[in-house]
Amino acid sequence: MSSTVSPLAPQNVPDMPEIAGIRLATAEAGIRYKNRTDVLLAVMDKGTAVAGVFTKSKCPSAPVEWCRAKLKGGKARALVVNSGNANAFTGKTGRQSTALTAAIAAKAVGCSANEIFLASTGVIGEPLDATKFDGVLGRLADGTEPGDYLAAAKAIMTTDTFPKVATATVKLGKAKVTINGMAKGAGMIAPDMATMLSFIFTDAPIAPAALQALLKSGVEDTFNAVTIDGDTSTSDTLLAFATGAATANGAPKISRASDPRLKAFTKAFREVLADLSEQVARDGEGARKLVEITVEGATTKASARKIAMSIANSPLVKTAIAGEDANWGRVVMAVGKAGEPANRDKLSIAFNGIRVAKSGARDPSYDEAQVSEAMKAPKIAIKVSLGLGKGRDRVLTCDLTKEYVAINGDYRS
Amino acid sequence: MSSTVSPLAPQNVPDMPEIAGIRLATAEAGIRYKNRTDVLLAVMDKGTAVAGVFTKSKCPSAPVEWCRAKLKGGKARALVVNSGNANAFTGKTGRQSTALTAAIAAKAVGCSANEIFLASTGVIGEPLDATKFDGVLGRLADGTEPGDYLAAAKAIMTTDTFPKVATATVKLGKAKVTINGMAKGAGMIAPDMATMLSFIFTDAPIAPAALQALLKSGVEDTFNAVTIDGDTSTSDTLLAFATGAATANGAPKISRASDPRLKAFTKAFREVLADLSEQVARDGEGARKLVEITVEGATTKASARKIAMSIANSPLVKTAIAGEDANWGRVVMAVGKAGEPANRDKLSIAFNGIRVAKSGARDPSYDEAQVSEAMKAPKIAIKVSLGLGKGRDRVLTCDLTKEYVAINGDYRS
Repeated sequence: MSSTVSPLAPQNVPDMPEIAGIRLATAEAGIRYKNRTDVLLAVMDKGTAVAGVFTKSKCPSAPVEWCRAKLKGGKARALVVNSGNANAFTGKTGRQSTALTAAIAAKAVGCSANEIFLASTGVIGEPLDATKFDGVLGRLADGTEPGDYLAAAKAIMTTDTFPKVATATVKLGKAKVTINGMAKGAGMIAPDMATMLSFIFTDAPIAPAALQALLKSGVEDTFNAVTIDGDTSTSDTLLAFATGAATANGAPKISRASDPRLKAFTKAFREVLADLSEQVARDGEGARKLVEITVEGATTKASARKIAMSIANSPLVKTAIAGEDANWGRVVMAVGKAGEPANRDKLSIAFNGIRVAKSGARDPSYDEAQVSEAMKAPKIAIKVSLGLGKGRDRVLTCDLTKEYVAINGDYRS
Repeated sequence: MSSTVSPLAPQNVPDMPEIAGIRLATAEAGIRYKNRTDVLLAVMDKGTAVAGVFTKSKCPSAPVEWCRAKLKGGKARALVVNSGNANAFTGKTGRQSTALTAAIAAKAVGCSANEIFLASTGVIGEPLDATKFDGVLGRLADGTEPGDYLAAAKAIMTTDTFPKVATATVKLGKAKVTINGMAKGAGMIAPDMATMLSFIFTDAPIAPAALQALLKSGVEDTFNAVTIDGDTSTSDTLLAFATGAATANGAPKISRASDPRLKAFTKAFREVLADLSEQVARDGEGARKLVEITVEGATTKASARKIAMSIANSPLVKTAIAGEDANWGRVVMAVGKAGEPANRDKLSIAFNGIRVAKSGARDPSYDEAQVSEAMKAPKIAIKVSLGLGKGRDRVLTCDLTKEYVAINGDYRS
């Protein structure tokens, strides 16, 4: 946790309502940090459906492998998250550690270890001593409460400068259902650490397969459309839990994501994912500008995504924005290197609504003073129009500042 | 040009011999810089063969398009290079500008415009006023001299901190032939600028097709295996000129790159390319460490290259090296995100010969003090052993420092 909160932090933190069927507790287990919470236990009622998406890394962490395997059952009774140690690249010890943590949690909660989900964030390559959870998880299980999501979001932070929560309430059939979410990010990788974690909770009665489908399509334009530094964590984990407690209020049981009754819920669910993923971008390491890149006129949406990501991950574009420089030449460079169809002579580029390049050359009406003024804003929208087709996409990132280098270049202590 | 020379600059600059059939001249055209040379004219004897490789950008500069078109003729009489303006993303004006520059040069040299090759480096998007070359090129053509390659290398610099030259002398048949090369880089992209340029000159009598084949295979493990920031310029240009003047000394005419008599020449040619490309890495913007990444045990060489590039372009690996931190967890991350075959449990990693990770976990003999000491060296060799096959590759890069952000984040003035 940093002492200086990102200037891009949301102005208002929402009041997080309780969700029937979910109980939370946090504790200080002293895994790496001192005088702060570093373990979260979420206990779910029986019958809670679970869905998850994970890092595409070929070297995933032990908890990611654990969750992938347990997801097949579709049911969850508890989630254990620790910060300070990612339990990644820890070999056989790492696998033993996840198994032991799950066994301790299962005993504390009174369920099968197959219903325990795990996530860890922190140092890579350091063995995680799971025996530290032994007393802690038992005490946590006894002390869970229905509702402090903000405290839960704080317990999973590493170098995040603010806790990230979001909530939505929506009708499912005639019943009111709630969706709560939390996330941690802070640059995908903090000093010596690696993880983006996010957890979504709802009382809506949604079957595992439907929840998985919702999650998979929901992340495409939210979490998967955010990049801080292009470095994919070994531990990225997004889990969704649906307790089904809202059936008591008359919410219909949903078994398919395509169920028309799910329409409002799907929209709200995506909004929660979008809110959380934008908060991750707003808390990028050293970030001083939130950057939204929209590419339109591409041959396909996938092509627009690749070009947008090429711009979003370009160190030269990101340093220019840090310097409040509308350096559209670097945007051209990033479009050109993406390898996707692009025609220089049809390319137009705008910064915060001001067109700076048109038809492959500087816009004739380009006004340096006007553009410079626009670049002082905390949010910079870059729009690239390719003029080739109808493919359109949008990604979020942040600028690249000296603080990013300082945060990540300081020697591990 | 920077006033502070990179600490990684070569200790010794070679004496550059003359090359029969090549004459050089430089001048101050005042395109952007004041009180420094910014135009290079190289005039070649009739019959000089030319070959070239260029940026893969989909938005190439006007000079790149010009050279690509003229390369078909296989013959060159002159090369004109200017620094200060890249003539990239300048639309129709840019094409007119290259045509006018070539016409002026052709008149000055007394040849066809189709035998003029052009390269520009500097600001993107700014129209290049080719009329500035009008008097200059005539005077330059009258004043060419056989030999100041160092002055030539200086005239093409932008934010490079030192001129980059290399030379080799080798036998072709029974005759001595010479290869001279120069390059500019400085981080692929300097403030607001974009270009890696390199030019090779030889008196060996090598036909255009053979020279092209030599160049194409030569760059694969030299210039194409170097990255500063992963940002591909719109203007990258590497041209090779072979005057054939060494036939006067009995050098045999070579028409095929596979000619066995070319063996020693091919080796020397590659060494010149390797030397120049390493100098580009040593002069990466803000660089304080030269980083050599070797990946072995991959399924193929191409797979090893992708993984090595994923490591070389990772901001987190590069900032860790800037902080003299042997943060091998970030190397694991970069291996994992490359998307290539990798097995976490077979992975080993070494920094400057010290193994830090083995079989998917920290090396049991890991000694933090020993590794920390090793990380203070100006050159860091990272070796990743995947344990899957025989694929092996090597790339060069530099660290990512606050100076890189400062150089590229300062507002255009």
